[in-house]
Amino acid sequence: LIRSNNSELGWSRKASEEAEAVASLSCSGHGRAYLDGFVLDGGKPICECNSCYTGLDCSQLVPDCVVDVDSGNPIFLEPFWRQNAASSAIMMAGWHRMGYEFEDGSLISKELEKKIRKLHATVGNAVTEGRYIVFGAGSTQLLNAAVHALAADASSSPAKVVASAPYYPVYKSQTELFESAKFKFEGHTSSWMNSSSINFIEFVTSPNNPDGQLKKAVLQGPNAKQIYDLAYYWPHYTAIASPMDKDLMIFTLSKLTGHAGSRFGWAIIKNKAVYERMVNYMDLNTYGVSRETQLRTLKLLSVVLEGNGKQMFSFGYEAMRFRWEKLSKILSASKRFSIQQLTPQQCTFSNEVRAPTPAFAWIKCEKEEDKDCHATLSAAKIIGRAGHVFGVDSTFVRLSLVNGKDDFELLQHRLEMLVFQERLVNLMAEFTPG
Amino acid sequence: LIRSNNSELGWSRKASEEAEAVASLSCSGHGRAYLDGFVLDGGKPICECNSCYTGLDCSQLVPDCVVDVDSGNPIFLEPFWRQNAASSAIMMAGWHRMGYEFEDGSLISKELEKKIRKLHATVGNAVTEGRYIVFGAGSTQLLNAAVHALAADASSSPAKVVASAPYYPVYKSQTELFESAKFKFEGHTSSWMNSSSINFIEFVTSPNNPDGQLKKAVLQGPNAKQIYDLAYYWPHYTAIASPMDKDLMIFTLSKLTGHAGSRFGWAIIKNKAVYERMVNYMDLNTYGVSRETQLRTLKLLSVVLEGNGKQMFSFGYEAMRFRWEKLSKILSASKRFSIQQLTPQQCTFSNEVRAPTPAFAWIKCEKEEDKDCHATLSAAKIIGRAGHVFGVDSTFVRLSLVNGKDDFELLQHRLEMLVFQERLVNLMAEFTPG
Repeated sequence: LIRSNNSELGWSRKASEEAEAVASLSCSGHGRAYLDGFVLDGGKPICECNSCYTGLDCSQLVPDCVVDVDSGNPIFLEPFWRQNAASSAIMMAGWHRMGYEFEDGSLISKELEKKIRKLHATVGNAVTEGRYIVFGAGSTQLLNAAVHALAADASSSPAKVVASAPYYPVYKSQTELFESAKFKFEGHTSSWMNSSSINFIEFVTSPNNPDGQLKKAVLQGPNAKQIYDLAYYWPHYTAIASPMDKDLMIFTLSKLTGHAGSRFGWAIIKNKAVYERMVNYMDLNTYGVSRETQLRTLKLLSVVLEGNGKQMFSFGYEAMRFRWEKLSKILSASKRFSIQQLTPQQCTFSNEVRAPTPAFAWIKCEKEEDKDCHATLSAAKIIGRAGHVFGVDSTFVRLSLVNGKDDFELLQHRLEMLVFQERLVNLMAEFTPG
Repeated sequence: LIRSNNSELGWSRKASEEAEAVASLSCSGHGRAYLDGFVLDGGKPICECNSCYTGLDCSQLVPDCVVDVDSGNPIFLEPFWRQNAASSAIMMAGWHRMGYEFEDGSLISKELEKKIRKLHATVGNAVTEGRYIVFGAGSTQLLNAAVHALAADASSSPAKVVASAPYYPVYKSQTELFESAKFKFEGHTSSWMNSSSINFIEFVTSPNNPDGQLKKAVLQGPNAKQIYDLAYYWPHYTAIASPMDKDLMIFTLSKLTGHAGSRFGWAIIKNKAVYERMVNYMDLNTYGVSRETQLRTLKLLSVVLEGNGKQMFSFGYEAMRFRWEKLSKILSASKRFSIQQLTPQQCTFSNEVRAPTPAFAWIKCEKEEDKDCHATLSAAKIIGRAGHVFGVDSTFVRLSLVNGKDDFELLQHRLEMLVFQERLVNLMAEFTPG
């Protein structure tokens, strides 16, 4: 009898067995079971099906189901983590890091901070040498922490928080939520081009959410400060041109590894006073980021950096390239719908010219009768996010390309149907005597 | 050859072995190693020693070390989790809950919500039937979410946020941090006793931090709202008199199970509009609580509820009772230092009269020459938290009783020395001719 295991496990065995039992539940490739999923009376977790699939084992497609590509839920990377199950799993003891602080009194794992610096050095997308790093609950928490820290310098009148349209809607809704005496959302950068004496805090998103374009700050002058939201500046979404070296840059695990539910992000900061104000904000807002999340993020980034550090990015790039090609091809036959123009670029990380691989399709409805583009697509059972949410008109809609395979395939099918209908209508028009 | 394991483990084995290897590192009972601890060049985590212990295996006591009982770091429960290692461990797959939302679109695990309701029903400390529940990053995040939600109803002038001194300092510092147009910290309730027309948001902490007293709201009237901070309303810190049934109650895992680093708390809310505003705040501030934390909390609360649900509370109560008795006895011999008076109370959970078991000793320096009590104790190498931080005078100091055993023993020793010195001085005075 040959023993495949080289040691007997003790206290951790039960939790391992539970996790493997849950993971082995078959959900037909259209769902998955989780340890904390809805537990039936017998105490066994059940399959949580992808949208548009149903049944105890998620094997049934729901007829005429609406495909929801509103949220940018980054499930496209899930298969990568299943392929790397052994190296990405984490066993957490009941007594893991119970205390409020790390040994040095901070709320930040130094090992994770080192790993993040190494990751940026490997990818070449951001300068971290001599910079401070703060962790937050996703980029979400850091966006306002940054606004707060930058607005502290402002004089008597509140700092004006602005962004170039189309912009990520949270900049507006979050800034407005806090109703601070120190800052106020003041709309589009385009309204403020010649106002160099005003205190501005400009959100610069590059690549941009929703349209994937590389962006630069628009407002200049001694009182203009920038928050660079670099959530998508990774090799699976864009060619990496050079390391970014800005005063305040924000990244998130959500779009890097796909772990949106972990709520982990980080900011890279040049100025010490700004850094300290952000640390103070984190202290008083949540007292730092969950230790469970920091431990898991450390493990996930270790997997990302394994070998030459290219494995996950290659997986992600291939998935996104496939999707963009499919979508471009379908819509190239349409005069009713167009998508954003993106060009291939040299990428320093992969050392090759990279095709566009944006996280979102930014659709424009070109016809007068489709001016409410969201309604047009909804009628075709495609739920996107309406242009007005991004500060532009309603002829635009954002469609997520980072969802799971089932969602993408359904989206593809629905768009094919739309374009097929369009051609049919055109053909009929041609053969109808004037 | 008898196999003790009934199944071979697959993908989870490596992570289990890593965790057990780290857990088996000997740190002499004065420290522990963590998976994400400082890793030496060889890649092996090292012992993180309790304060006042040093050496690679934490075996050396640092001579004349300062004992830090400033923070209420709830490490006293750590031995309980080590005793329950198998049932409290969690194995997390690399693909565990990657998405932004749960299956129902919310940011809250329904299983965990159910578990929390069951816990309150078992302990009998809060009514949850027909109430809404919101999760937050510790009570910290929920405190401001609650202020935000209650202030939304206020008229043109900002709501006045108040508390009865001595009060938990975060109420003030957090409210001031946000510099909101809608609310403002306005000090002690005692200044506002006859102002019933004003919009108040009163923090009521019961048992109170720092002094362990049971408290009630002080300000009355149609425009007075309360946030009940019930962090310590659990059977290891106080007798449970009856289930609390207030409009807005906040609890935290930190003091319940000792997992302060997990940053998990919850609010129980009667009013639907208030609940919805708190949900909106959580959405825009952090987009919910980490899925890793929610999974682990579910596991920990399952252990708390095992059997008759009394095991952890008994462990905690015995530890706190032992400490309070020791401290009371030492200080009963002193006229220089006094501690708060607390009386035994009938507890509905344990069905017996319970001795006082507060989380903090609230020390008063009784002599004129010790009016800076914090300085007096610091000189004796005891770091507490100064009274002025809690809104009272500096003759008071808070000492944490929830820290690890090493900290408590050192505190006990230092206080014994102080009281011994006091008696020596008194004796010498007696024998010195006037």
